[in-house]
Amino acid sequence: MSAISPRDLAAALTELWSPRVIGELDDNYVKVAKVEGSLAWHSHEGEDELFYVLDGVFRIEMEERTVVLNPGEMFVVPKGVRHNPIAEEECLILLIERKSTLHTGDVRTEKTRSIDEQLRAL
Amino acid sequence: MSAISPRDLAAALTELWSPRVIGELDDNYVKVAKVEGSLAWHSHEGEDELFYVLDGVFRIEMEERTVVLNPGEMFVVPKGVRHNPIAEEECLILLIERKSTLHTGDVRTEKTRSIDEQLRAL
Repeated sequence: MSAISPRDLAAALTELWSPRVIGELDDNYVKVAKVEGSLAWHSHEGEDELFYVLDGVFRIEMEERTVVLNPGEMFVVPKGVRHNPIAEEECLILLIERKSTLHTGDVRTEKTRSIDEQLRAL
Repeated sequence: MSAISPRDLAAALTELWSPRVIGELDDNYVKVAKVEGSLAWHSHEGEDELFYVLDGVFRIEMEERTVVLNPGEMFVVPKGVRHNPIAEEECLILLIERKSTLHTGDVRTEKTRSIDEQLRAL
């Protein structure tokens, strides 16, 4: 029960695209991730997903448009919208999504991490 | 449906302690506020409340302890915990809380703003 710095926690991660839970907000998890390259096209049928960029540049490709996020910018991918997160260079992000949300949504790839893996101590 | 900068939106606010909704995440609102001074001792019986500091220094007094948040730091006040938010100097914050949450919780003060007021265009 103390203040935490999502940016510092994300910077300490060693594995790319492997989100870690840093907090809880009712039925949502607050997570950080270090990312580079692309994740996978996927969607979350019943859940919105919030992205906030802590460092670097993050791109969210969607079928109708692409959103580019600079540090300090956020975007909520609405439920059901297919998207593909991309970072040309290493990027630190904060995510908020329901506890039930898998970060690769309706697809499973070699990057998919279980909730248990995301709950490992930082 | 584009990237937004919570910090820029918070900086543009003219009224202190008057949160504005800048996004939705399922049954939660993402809000920004410009604050200075103290709000009021209150609690939210059934809802956690996330604070993330965009600029300045923010203090959350609780009965058992006080948490000091610097820029880029966050803290979740657990449901039911009485707290009093304070900023000695002007401070910009991002809040995430359930759509049903009133920012002054179980008390009403001259600073209390209705959800309709918080939904006004920025």
